[in-house]
Amino acid sequence: MTQSPPRSFPQSGTIGWIGTGIMGSSIVLHLLKAGYTVNVFNRTKSKTDDLIRAGAVWRSSPFDIAANSDAVFLMVGYPHDVRETVLGENGVLNGIRPGGLIVDMTTSSPSLAVEIETACRRKNVVSLDVPVSGGDVGAKKGTLSLMIGGDEKTANDLMPLWKVFGQTIVYHGPAGSGQHAKMVNQTILAGNMIGLCEGLLYARRAGLDWEKVLSSVSTGAAGSWTLSNMGPRILQGDFAPGFMTEHFLKDLRIVLDESKRMNIRLRGAELAEQFYAEAVEQGCAADGSQRLYTILERYSP
Amino acid sequence: MTQSPPRSFPQSGTIGWIGTGIMGSSIVLHLLKAGYTVNVFNRTKSKTDDLIRAGAVWRSSPFDIAANSDAVFLMVGYPHDVRETVLGENGVLNGIRPGGLIVDMTTSSPSLAVEIETACRRKNVVSLDVPVSGGDVGAKKGTLSLMIGGDEKTANDLMPLWKVFGQTIVYHGPAGSGQHAKMVNQTILAGNMIGLCEGLLYARRAGLDWEKVLSSVSTGAAGSWTLSNMGPRILQGDFAPGFMTEHFLKDLRIVLDESKRMNIRLRGAELAEQFYAEAVEQGCAADGSQRLYTILERYSP
Repeated sequence: MTQSPPRSFPQSGTIGWIGTGIMGSSIVLHLLKAGYTVNVFNRTKSKTDDLIRAGAVWRSSPFDIAANSDAVFLMVGYPHDVRETVLGENGVLNGIRPGGLIVDMTTSSPSLAVEIETACRRKNVVSLDVPVSGGDVGAKKGTLSLMIGGDEKTANDLMPLWKVFGQTIVYHGPAGSGQHAKMVNQTILAGNMIGLCEGLLYARRAGLDWEKVLSSVSTGAAGSWTLSNMGPRILQGDFAPGFMTEHFLKDLRIVLDESKRMNIRLRGAELAEQFYAEAVEQGCAADGSQRLYTILERYSP
Repeated sequence: MTQSPPRSFPQSGTIGWIGTGIMGSSIVLHLLKAGYTVNVFNRTKSKTDDLIRAGAVWRSSPFDIAANSDAVFLMVGYPHDVRETVLGENGVLNGIRPGGLIVDMTTSSPSLAVEIETACRRKNVVSLDVPVSGGDVGAKKGTLSLMIGGDEKTANDLMPLWKVFGQTIVYHGPAGSGQHAKMVNQTILAGNMIGLCEGLLYARRAGLDWEKVLSSVSTGAAGSWTLSNMGPRILQGDFAPGFMTEHFLKDLRIVLDESKRMNIRLRGAELAEQFYAEAVEQGCAADGSQRLYTILERYSP
């Protein structure tokens, strides 16, 4: 009888996790269940309570997380949060050992991902940008779509770990490419949301029965995830998130920043940015992105 | 042994068909195969040659079609063609018997559909507006989606006939409602096309591999018929129609006209109208609607 050698990271080991919102918490639970030791930090400590009860270990700062983990994952709010968490004085990069790994799963700026990788490389640290799609439901079920940018070998080596919470796992290229892929997703989604909400507004004003319209159009050329999933919610007046208006606005602003940098003009995304900025201004920041419908109605009193 | 009584319209009888383009011709072939006698007229006579070989009967005008048919169907180009064909001096309404039926399957103006119904009613003629979606493939396979506006009883009575070439058959309401439903379809589609083309442009400029992007995004919240069907065509540089740019422009202009009438503002549809107007101006009128991609590229030299 041979004895198995002790498994090591990424098959097992200690993971640091920063940012325990709805999505982050679900992923941490998957990691704990898969046998990882997980250190957690969150700005609002109470949001880690359930995770600590489930076996996670509280650490008091990103620095502290980094000093006690094989790899550090983060899923925080905005690019400036990512910057502060990774590059700040009490941040991950100052605490991590050489040879360590930083994985940013926040939907954030591709340019910032490149900047972080450059800073990491100087310290012999590897970084990956791995935004996800699939929402809270995908996080809970462990069926997220992972869009990976950064070092390809590292991305491949981590496959056992990705599979703990991901289903569609795609490597997109060098640092920033994961974020770019996510921005493509958001750009397409923005157009689909505008089309749906304008179509719905037209249908209502024309006196059509939306159920009948759905049955006419949803299986044809106008069909989409947005139409089938957001259409019914809007009609029920259900504006709960799903995916929050303020986060979509953040993403659209990243899309437009990067577009400018790449010298392309995306007028549909610009229009969506205006609509979502208005939604946030109207106090709908924490509503679902389907709130766009109400904003469009305001143009049509 | 009992003998069946002779069937009558809409189970059998003589149909007049005006407009034998790609879609119209496919539908006429289905009607002939189903046992109907079909009179045909088309501005360009040669486009009826195949149908006449298949058993259709040439008639020399819309008036002549109407004088010799139980019901008259039309599928022509623009609202002004519909108007001329139905209401013109040598048109259908002047030739049809009282108690007759006119079915406009052109994607045309809802307001015109109402105007036609009013004119028909004065002559004791019934009219329906029945635009379709599903394209040339749907017409060939007999799997079109039919959006019906007008008299509900007539729409129901015609079910055996609709089923000859339609699969999704939905009654939407009084005259113009079929056209309105189709305009909703086109409004949604316009947003989806903008989202797709902008996403694709972003992806290319960011240096992403589109196959990989598709595998990351097409099964999630950004997924759509447009993404899965038009994305690959654009990448292959395939701009053949499908659905012609100039026809999409026509539809978008109807959407905007009706929006104005209904006092709603659809800024996404306005943007699409500008893009498709530019496409037509650039000589791309007969290209597929995916030509939008090339137009967007022009903004981003």
